[in-house]
Amino acid sequence: MRVLSGIQPSGALHLGNYFGAMKQHIELQEENECFYFIANYHSLTTIQDPERLRELTRDVAFDYLTMGLDPEKVIFFRHSDVPEVTELAWILSTVTGKGLLERAHSFKDKTAKGLGVNMGLFCYPLLMAADILIYRSDVVPVGKDQVQHIEMTQDMAGYFNQTYREVFVRPEPRLNEAFVVPGVDGQKMSKSYGNAIDLFGDPKATKKRIMSIKTDSTPVEDPKDPAQCNVFALLKLIAEPEEAREWERRYRVGGLGYGQAKKRLAELYEEKFGSKRELRAQWAARPDDVEDILRSGGRRARAVAQEVMAEARAACGLVTAKH
Amino acid sequence: MRVLSGIQPSGALHLGNYFGAMKQHIELQEENECFYFIANYHSLTTIQDPERLRELTRDVAFDYLTMGLDPEKVIFFRHSDVPEVTELAWILSTVTGKGLLERAHSFKDKTAKGLGVNMGLFCYPLLMAADILIYRSDVVPVGKDQVQHIEMTQDMAGYFNQTYREVFVRPEPRLNEAFVVPGVDGQKMSKSYGNAIDLFGDPKATKKRIMSIKTDSTPVEDPKDPAQCNVFALLKLIAEPEEAREWERRYRVGGLGYGQAKKRLAELYEEKFGSKRELRAQWAARPDDVEDILRSGGRRARAVAQEVMAEARAACGLVTAKH
Repeated sequence: MRVLSGIQPSGALHLGNYFGAMKQHIELQEENECFYFIANYHSLTTIQDPERLRELTRDVAFDYLTMGLDPEKVIFFRHSDVPEVTELAWILSTVTGKGLLERAHSFKDKTAKGLGVNMGLFCYPLLMAADILIYRSDVVPVGKDQVQHIEMTQDMAGYFNQTYREVFVRPEPRLNEAFVVPGVDGQKMSKSYGNAIDLFGDPKATKKRIMSIKTDSTPVEDPKDPAQCNVFALLKLIAEPEEAREWERRYRVGGLGYGQAKKRLAELYEEKFGSKRELRAQWAARPDDVEDILRSGGRRARAVAQEVMAEARAACGLVTAKH
Repeated sequence: MRVLSGIQPSGALHLGNYFGAMKQHIELQEENECFYFIANYHSLTTIQDPERLRELTRDVAFDYLTMGLDPEKVIFFRHSDVPEVTELAWILSTVTGKGLLERAHSFKDKTAKGLGVNMGLFCYPLLMAADILIYRSDVVPVGKDQVQHIEMTQDMAGYFNQTYREVFVRPEPRLNEAFVVPGVDGQKMSKSYGNAIDLFGDPKATKKRIMSIKTDSTPVEDPKDPAQCNVFALLKLIAEPEEAREWERRYRVGGLGYGQAKKRLAELYEEKFGSKRELRAQWAARPDDVEDILRSGGRRARAVAQEVMAEARAACGLVTAKH
């Protein structure tokens, strides 16, 4: 199966990003043909600082390579190294009604909040559809909030295929498991809430942050409900299943202080992520190699995109048939 | 001065197209560096028949070459041979508010008529701005109805330059002289009104069509007002100034039948356009040569576009600075 995903370069990754998407991305590389791109064209709608965009683009590449993305298995590239997607977005725009775009939740949310919307944000689903269709992707792993965009992509593929001929494959969404990843305050972990635990944070600061996770005031000797505990929610994600079950049992029988669970969580964090700080520093010290990886991925992706675009262009009459 | 114009491939050209735009296009080639493209990306918003689009694209190339466009002087090419314009349209979309596009007259007219609007029609001014800015065009010859689009282009160039740095040149509109070209019924000549006199029409049919031009019933012996006469309006465009003045005099003194003026108009039409039927047939018999002309123009245009895009991409952080 051909799997496509776009990765937003949005700064230091945290555990919520890892368990919400990155882990699946890396697992999917084993059994599938994966195309993962760093979505810098999309980022232009919100990040309008070239130095920062370049930095974020590099950073997310370092993060993925550190956590095990294998560029031999995955076609890993930069969005803007396949400019053909913007051409396809234009072509799709000519077979897509304005109403479809106006029904996008993401757009309606933004206007409901009274935010000025730039055309890039409004047209975002067109470019996303192009991103998916240009590689004839079978599957797109997404969170719930993105399912509508995949449905819109299916619609646009249908509009084109019906207007001209069958060029595009109908992609299917693959819902990411909806892991609840709480931040230190118990809300959903999010950079914007300031409650995140970063993947490659400073060891001392991260330990302190983990020890500060909000818990209730159940006395040590009482039984505790693991389902209500932010610490347990993170332990369950990071520990081996057997160990997680053992913690669950200890919560339920009582006699466990939250501090113990936090200490273990901090240890496990160090084992899994802290141990990779060095590796990440090594990647960060080799920006030219990472650039080469992205460029090489871009060439492979572009070759596929150009083949599909040659068909699409011929189908709608942009090129002279005989040439 | 660098002059840019997009030519809509919309079927057999008529005298209205010629005096309204084509004649100026061809005159401008003498003193300027002209980039003229056949706007097939734009056509996709209305023509969704690949065979027809290919045919119309070829036809308009035959027409321009026949009427004297010199591909040594003009960079004459097909829109879709410079796909970089769609990339620039995306980039411009990220610095342009949705409101600007909603204020476009062309869009408001369509929605006011209750026409369903596709996204391509709505986004048209973004692609048009990209078409202009990507060649750093100084001047865009337009009709009155297109002036707003040039102003929007100026705005978008400003948004980009202010957000990042000065990459784009502010283009200026050059208003085409507002020739009134009446059709055979006296309304503005337009294919959609069915009142057009084609450039390379069949000789007999065209003569008949010219003889059928609507006139009033002033008796032959009476003086006539040339400003009120559809035949004179066309004579004035097609005849040499001296001859036109002579006809004007004859109108005013009386004793002139409209039939005489029509006959002379038919003669002049044959001299100027009819005489080129053979030449046009010769171009039409050499589609591969025309294809080569367009391709070669496309390569020249694309080289300019790629240079400007490299700057634009670097300015907004899509590429790594050092590469």
